Order: sequence, then C-alpha cells, then structure tokens
Amino acid sequence: MTITVVGSIAYDAVETPFGVRERMLGGAATHFALAASVLHDVRLVGPVGDDFDDADLAVLQTRGSNIDDVERVAGGKTFFWKGKYGWDLNTRETLDTQLNVFEHFAPKLSQASRDCDVLFLANIQPGLQLQVREQCPSARFVALDSMNLWIDIARDELVEIIGRVDCLMLNDEELRQLTAKPNLISAAHEILEWGPTVVVAKQGEYGSALITKDDFFALPAYPLHEVVDPTGAGDTFAGGFVGFIAKHIDQLHEPEVLRNAMAYGTALASFNVEQFGTEGLQDVSPAAVRQRVDDLWRFARFERMEVALLD
Amino acid sequence: MTITVVGSIAYDAVETPFGVRERMLGGAATHFALAASVLHDVRLVGPVGDDFDDADLAVLQTRGSNIDDVERVAGGKTFFWKGKYGWDLNTRETLDTQLNVFEHFAPKLSQASRDCDVLFLANIQPGLQLQVREQCPSARFVALDSMNLWIDIARDELVEIIGRVDCLMLNDEELRQLTAKPNLISAAHEILEWGPTVVVAKQGEYGSALITKDDFFALPAYPLHEVVDPTGAGDTFAGGFVGFIAKHIDQLHEPEVLRNAMAYGTALASFNVEQFGTEGLQDVSPAAVRQRVDDLWRFARFERMEVALLD
Repeated sequence: MTITVVGSIAYDAVETPFGVRERMLGGAATHFALAASVLHDVRLVGPVGDDFDDADLAVLQTRGSNIDDVERVAGGKTFFWKGKYGWDLNTRETLDTQLNVFEHFAPKLSQASRDCDVLFLANIQPGLQLQVREQCPSARFVALDSMNLWIDIARDELVEIIGRVDCLMLNDEELRQLTAKPNLISAAHEILEWGPTVVVAKQGEYGSALITKDDFFALPAYPLHEVVDPTGAGDTFAGGFVGFIAKHIDQLHEPEVLRNAMAYGTALASFNVEQFGTEGLQDVSPAAVRQRVDDLWRFARFERMEVALLD
Repeated sequence: MTITVVGSIAYDAVETPFGVRERMLGGAATHFALAASVLHDVRLVGPVGDDFDDADLAVLQTRGSNIDDVERVAGGKTFFWKGKYGWDLNTRETLDTQLNVFEHFAPKLSQASRDCDVLFLANIQPGLQLQVREQCPSARFVALDSMNLWIDIARDELVEIIGRVDCLMLNDEELRQLTAKPNLISAAHEILEWGPTVVVAKQGEYGSALITKDDFFALPAYPLHEVVDPTGAGDTFAGGFVGFIAKHIDQLHEPEVLRNAMAYGTALASFNVEQFGTEGLQDVSPAAVRQRVDDLWRFARFERMEVALLD
C-alpha cells in the first residue's frame, strides 16, 4: 500500500525578509513527499532535467520515498520558480516561472504507482490531473490541489477533475473564486455538491478549515516566533494530512481521522516554514512532530464553563 | 459590580453586497454593550447629539445596560461613519467620518461608572483613554482597543495607556504595525513586556488568537453561510470576551476563563455579522448563544489518535 503524488519537482529562488536562496530544491511533490513520508510510504511522479543534482534525488528519497517514477528528461531543464515575499510574508510576487521539462509533461505511472491506495494530485494542469486519476482506478482516497491560474484558463477541466476526487484542498480565496461565492462556507458546500466529501480551505498564517456536509473543524497555524520561508507550506500541510489519512484508510468514517490529519498537516507545515526550502523537513524527528501535535491539541480546545446569561 | 465601557455611540451608513443602510445605530460602545449585557451589568459612557433618537437610547438599554453617562450634547450632532465593504467583506473603505460631538469629548464618569470592576476602553484617542483609566483606579481588569490611526499619530500616548491595561485587543496587522515586528507571536510577546498580561489578536473572518506569556489559544470565527454586515464585529467580540471575564473576575488565574471568554466573544460576534447594525444582538436568546458556544467547542477540538511515525 502506497501514496502516489504527482506534481512538480523544482528549483526555487526565494527572497524573504530573512534571507535569499538562489537555487534550492522545491516543488509541490517534493514538499508533499517530505511530509507524507513521516507517516507513510510515498511514490513521487514528476519530471526533472539533466541539471537535477544527485544530492537532491537523495533528498526526494528521504524516509524511503520511492523515485522510480521521477523521470529525468534528457536535454531538459528542471522546472524553475523565483519569488519574493513581502515584509510580513503574507504577500508574494512571482518574479520568474520557467516550466522547462514540465511544458511537455505527460504523466506515465508505473504499475506500482498506479496501484496506490491514496493519490495526491498536486497543483498541475487539470487535464493532466484527469489523466493521472484515470490511471489510478483503485485509489480509495484522492486529494487535489490547484490554483487561481487554472480557475482562470481551464475551469471546465478543473471542475471535471474535482468531481472525481474525495478531497479538494485550496486557498480560501481560490474557493471563493472557483464558485463565485463570497462566503467560504457556502463556497465549500457548493463544491461538496460536485463530488468531494471533504473540502480543506488553506488559510496561510491563519491555519486551515475542514468542511464536510455535516461537520466543520478549524485549526490555527502552529504559533511560531519566526517564520523564515512559507514556500511549500500548503504542500507540506497536504503531505501530513494525506499521510495521516493513508494510515487510517479503513477508519475514514471516524471524524477524528480527518481532524487528526489536519493536526499532522499543521504540525509538519510549521517545520517547513521555519527554514528555507526542504531544510525544515529533512531531519524532522517523530518526537518533535508529536510534540507539536500535542501543543495544537492544547492550543485549540477549551472546556465549557457554566455561566448565567441574561435574556 | 459593573463593566464600564467608554467609546463611540454612532450613526452608521453601511453598504455591503447584501444591502444598504443610510442611518443605523452603531459605534463601538453600542456594539460592546449589546454583547456584554448578555453576560453582565454594563454602564455606557459616551456623547450623542440632539439628533439621537429615543428609540436608539432604548436599544442602548437592552438587557438593563445603564445610560446615565450617555451625555446628550445640546446643539451637537451624533458621530457619523459611512463605509462600503468589498465583495467578500474582507476589505472596507471609509467614505465619510464626521466626529461631531466626539470632537470635543472629555470623558466625565459618574461615581458609579468610576467604581467599575471591569473597564473597556473602546477605540478612541489614547489620551482620552488615559484620562478614563485614571478615573477608574479600582478596576481589576481593563481591556483596550485601538486602531492604526492612533499608531500613526499618537503612538507614545498609545504605548503609555497600553502599559496601564491588562488586555490589549487589536487586529493582527495593527499588532504588527505597533511593534514593527512582522511576526504576530513576536509582536504579541513584545507587548506583553509593556504591561498587559493578555493580548488578543482579532483576525476578522479567521477568528481570533489569545497570547499570554505561557499560553496560546485560537478560535475560528463561527462558520456562517451568510455574513451580511461585519461592522462592529470586533466590539461585539470584545463585549462577549470582557463580559465573560467580568463574571469570573475572581477566577482569572484559571486559563479556561480566558478561553471561554474567547468562545463567548466569538459566538456573540457571529450574531452581530448575520444582520445589519445592532439587529443581530438586540433579541439574541441565551439558548442561541449557548448553542453556538457548544458548536465552537466541537468545531475547535480534536482527540489525539496514536500513530507510528518514521524517523
């Protein structure tokens, strides 16, 4: 039993108020796998170029993740993204995007990757996500990420693939844009009519919210005194979330599975943003992850006190 | 024993995607009192003009709130604010502000208002907040709201009054601006060095966070399918928060008091934003408030599940 993730493996150039990195390992599949591998076996699917370092291949294999379907495209260059964050890290500007080997990417999954029980379709062109979905008919839980670009230029395909997954994970403003509904709860409930049983609204520094037909749950982001680089936080969150679900695939009817999945996603994302690129997740220890989940358990709950109210 | 609130009593003109109101009762002290009165006795202090309707005076007295210190200024006009909200209600533009009777407001508290155990200094000029603070020496818990304008033009006085209160309640971006620290947790901890023992970061539709020296707690906003008018949500939250604390002033060392205070503030704010102006709070029932606190209790908590993690 495995999780398959299909998405970008990239080199990122990032500038934040805390420093500059000219070229570091990044990409959605990378961040996802680093987090999910804390919980479960992962198989990565995605293209890289001739320029991809062996040391970075080794990072992709952290905690035993399988890279048989990481295709090294001869003569190609690895996907490149360059961005700059504002003062409080809540805004970012894309300075450069070079699709490179991603431009002609046609996902070819090995039988082992097709046989996954759990599938994460990271943010790529919705048509490609549909192709991957069709190659993995036995997946019991499929989660999907996307972005505003695809809502703008490929909305029909995006709605089609959303109809064929169990869980949509999107930024809250993208959920609004996708449904043209200004209210997040209404937007999420509309999407629950399209097929998914779970919608996760990613809310950046404010945490995330989980919306199902009958339930609502929200967790703050883990409170940190210093956030250094938010790049990949959403994919790291997705890795923890989906990783926990993969581990409890037979208990998905229990609401606590999804809630704990949110906590693991949140805890793992906090390690990601504390350092640049993949540094925060490469050596994260089980004890440290458990400590942050315990902290979140405490940060989020209250015990009701009786109080008289006036009419 | 009473809560005294000093702040604006206003007429608001509001345009949201859900409707327009040309003139409705508003103001920080108004929204605060409507919420706090669900929990506790309240005395309002603030000026109104000749134009202030008797029917609105009656609304200020909802659930027995005392208006002896609501001063009707002869020949004056009531504070007026006009604003327009964007599509998703997350942005708002002030179209008009007429200080009117507020321009020469010098807070004069009756002995009964000075004798308060709990004091809420709503958002007014920090110098006036200092004057009020000095008139209430026996207050055991003092909470303060402010805004970006005073950080810009009266920062020294603002820092001085912050040093003399127990709790600062501010929007998260204002906490950053005030401390010049981009990180919310660091910003809050700096303010805890100035005097307050509690910082509440108001985060709009994302809810709120509570930061003390040794603790952190966050609650999402109550999930609503329709938000009609966010005006006064922060002051309504403050009313529920401070009202709950007033009711438990001898138990302030118990962390659950502050956490439940957050829950009551959040629940009451949700009724405020469902309708225009004061409509949502005027007739709110104890049972409805309790139901939303119970819901929040459920929305925010998870029970930890054991899971094996990879090293």
